Amino acid sequence: MMCFPHPESPRLSSYASDHLQLCSGNGHYEIASHQERTTPDAGACHCYGCFSGKHCEHLNSDCDLNIFHGDPTLFEEYWLTQPDAPTIIPSWQGLSYFAHRHNSYLFVDSFLEQTIRQLHGMIGNAVTEGRFLVLGVGSTQLYQAALYALTSPDSPTPTSVVSAIPHYSSFEGVTRFLDSRRFKWIGDAEKFRDSGTSEPYIELVTSPNNPCGSMNKAVVNGNGSVINDLAYYWPHYTPITAPADYPIMLWTLSKITGHAGTRLGWAIVEDEKIATKMAFFVQMNTLGVSQDAQARGVTLLRSITSSYNTRPERQPFFHLSQAVLEDRWARMSQALQNSSRFVLPEFEPASCSFFGRAFQPNPPFMWLKCKVDEDCAQLLKDHKIISRGGRAFGVSTQYVRVSMLDRRPLFDLLLSRLAALH
Amino acid sequence: MMCFPHPESPRLSSYASDHLQLCSGNGHYEIASHQERTTPDAGACHCYGCFSGKHCEHLNSDCDLNIFHGDPTLFEEYWLTQPDAPTIIPSWQGLSYFAHRHNSYLFVDSFLEQTIRQLHGMIGNAVTEGRFLVLGVGSTQLYQAALYALTSPDSPTPTSVVSAIPHYSSFEGVTRFLDSRRFKWIGDAEKFRDSGTSEPYIELVTSPNNPCGSMNKAVVNGNGSVINDLAYYWPHYTPITAPADYPIMLWTLSKITGHAGTRLGWAIVEDEKIATKMAFFVQMNTLGVSQDAQARGVTLLRSITSSYNTRPERQPFFHLSQAVLEDRWARMSQALQNSSRFVLPEFEPASCSFFGRAFQPNPPFMWLKCKVDEDCAQLLKDHKIISRGGRAFGVSTQYVRVSMLDRRPLFDLLLSRLAALH
Repeated sequence: MMCFPHPESPRLSSYASDHLQLCSGNGHYEIASHQERTTPDAGACHCYGCFSGKHCEHLNSDCDLNIFHGDPTLFEEYWLTQPDAPTIIPSWQGLSYFAHRHNSYLFVDSFLEQTIRQLHGMIGNAVTEGRFLVLGVGSTQLYQAALYALTSPDSPTPTSVVSAIPHYSSFEGVTRFLDSRRFKWIGDAEKFRDSGTSEPYIELVTSPNNPCGSMNKAVVNGNGSVINDLAYYWPHYTPITAPADYPIMLWTLSKITGHAGTRLGWAIVEDEKIATKMAFFVQMNTLGVSQDAQARGVTLLRSITSSYNTRPERQPFFHLSQAVLEDRWARMSQALQNSSRFVLPEFEPASCSFFGRAFQPNPPFMWLKCKVDEDCAQLLKDHKIISRGGRAFGVSTQYVRVSMLDRRPLFDLLLSRLAALH
Repeated sequence: MMCFPHPESPRLSSYASDHLQLCSGNGHYEIASHQERTTPDAGACHCYGCFSGKHCEHLNSDCDLNIFHGDPTLFEEYWLTQPDAPTIIPSWQGLSYFAHRHNSYLFVDSFLEQTIRQLHGMIGNAVTEGRFLVLGVGSTQLYQAALYALTSPDSPTPTSVVSAIPHYSSFEGVTRFLDSRRFKWIGDAEKFRDSGTSEPYIELVTSPNNPCGSMNKAVVNGNGSVINDLAYYWPHYTPITAPADYPIMLWTLSKITGHAGTRLGWAIVEDEKIATKMAFFVQMNTLGVSQDAQARGVTLLRSITSSYNTRPERQPFFHLSQAVLEDRWARMSQALQNSSRFVLPEFEPASCSFFGRAFQPNPPFMWLKCKVDEDCAQLLKDHKIISRGGRAFGVSTQYVRVSMLDRRPLFDLLLSRLAALH
């Protein structure tokens, strides 16, 4: 046992019970700042969107429900009810730019690398043996690192970047924002293929797809490079049918445990030269990845793997999360099955090697099509649901992306509002 | 008091005493990984460079002493002997992309912002009132964010980026690596000024300068923009003569507390539009800054400010650190004062408003010139000192940068090796 004094800095309360009891499960209990403190632990609830009241006990039924982002707050409930799994970082840990342990990647904590490889091994969703691991500040940074590694300043023209539509909404902006001479955003991969061009290209494949949840493969099939974004290839979202085995695979903590705020991603890379170039990009861009984020990653991922090694009273992480998502999808599908407004996506069941049974995918997003040719995001906005419209994904406004990952009471509100649109 | 179970994940030992006693102060004590563990706390020392032995008790006198980087490990000694100031992050904290508290900057912890403003106020080294704060993954990322914010895709030609030589060695690489159409690296600011060109430019001013320690000002004085890199404008390095008051000021945790591995920087920005563009860059580049790094920043910076509010038995942080650096510079200057090999930099004393007394700067680097026109870094390398040669800073190989920030026994080794070259 270790005993630490209460941290001096004003922070969120460290007690799960404070959040669950004092803030009705609808907010975080914040300890007041040092200056304002009158009693030792004086604090207040900071309520999540749509909630108010001293104890966040009121749901404001006419609030704007913001599910524009895919903020994975759904998983907070799991962590709030877990036995304490805090990350404790002594003040003298991680001062150096370089991780303390021998590692061929200067900035990578070797325990984190080991933990990531163990997790993929346990789930069976990726080939890691003989592959190289590159860390990034989320997979967003690693995507740029891969663009950098796959292109050259000596190329006479910028390399085309393509992705089958609907494609992840951030790819275009992230590819364009620095106006690099190395690469250029083209978009629609099928149109690029059909143009019959033989110029060099990089194809992005997000599978399961964001926004639509389908298991995508590369469509161009030329001599270009492929970056496989596998953020959602985890068994709470989709059946694991085989270990993913691609030259460049991107992963992120955000979509596994829900810790988007930690900003921790990794790439599994076949070619050492590509891995080295990607690590060089991370070095030039941010001089490595926060050692504190890495410490957090070790604690959280080991907490998940150990939920399968011990015999807890409750279901282990992926089992519980899959059940929650399956329940959400079932309720949503039932509520909208005879909808006169929306066409729902359909999924085939597949056998999952990790769970040892077949089930239908439960993607993090619902990709809706309005039956009438109208601006579907605007329709939702008129009914106080802030979602992301089709344009951002390279398709028409008749489509809209709805996050299935919000906190429980807000998901329930989403369900009731969509059902009322019936 | 809070009691937490020992973290399950294999980590560095959390006890300062383990590092100081078991590893002779020359290494970190690592707890073995779960698989290999035989007794509950079986571990081993991981020795710093130049040390070996089961308890890191041996200094290998013929080792290569690597001070190529400015890794601020000097400060580890302060933190190892501090009362526990751990950062404790419960598993349910910081899941969301967005900080939990209301803040106009979506990704910025408001407690961190408050703490940063308090620290600058206490030291008197920056004007913060009415200015905007932008967080970045170290000041390296913020430098790129500023380049982005100060340029436009509509500009007919890339904006020239200049800096007086010797300039910080990473600026060139960081400016060039993505081959952006928005800006281009030019280098030598004085040559640019003397060319009489009226084209748009961005000037970088690192003050105190890295590598040479001088208090630099912008030299071009045209209609361009200036980015002021103030990483070392803290009283352990240099007298604080007035609050810095520039439109864009870059700061980093690395050089204040030594926590380079945390990757936390901030910009203080006068113009809200520029601040917004910089924050947009951080959003596109890494989707914000790790909430765990931010939690660490709050704990560490508050620990420093509170070392001045309480009356400890030992000197507070900046006083102690200034004394350590002053002692290092005094010993080095004395050892090399009649050197036949090297010309040492000279500094004038100035009155420091924070300490209330005058002293000479004690820069983090010693910028040496070899008296004979030879490759000075090669000379050092021949004597097993790996340093950074003048070329990286835009000047001749007759110059070399030597870090003054390494751990105590390695600084002592550096001193004795340089003195032997006398």
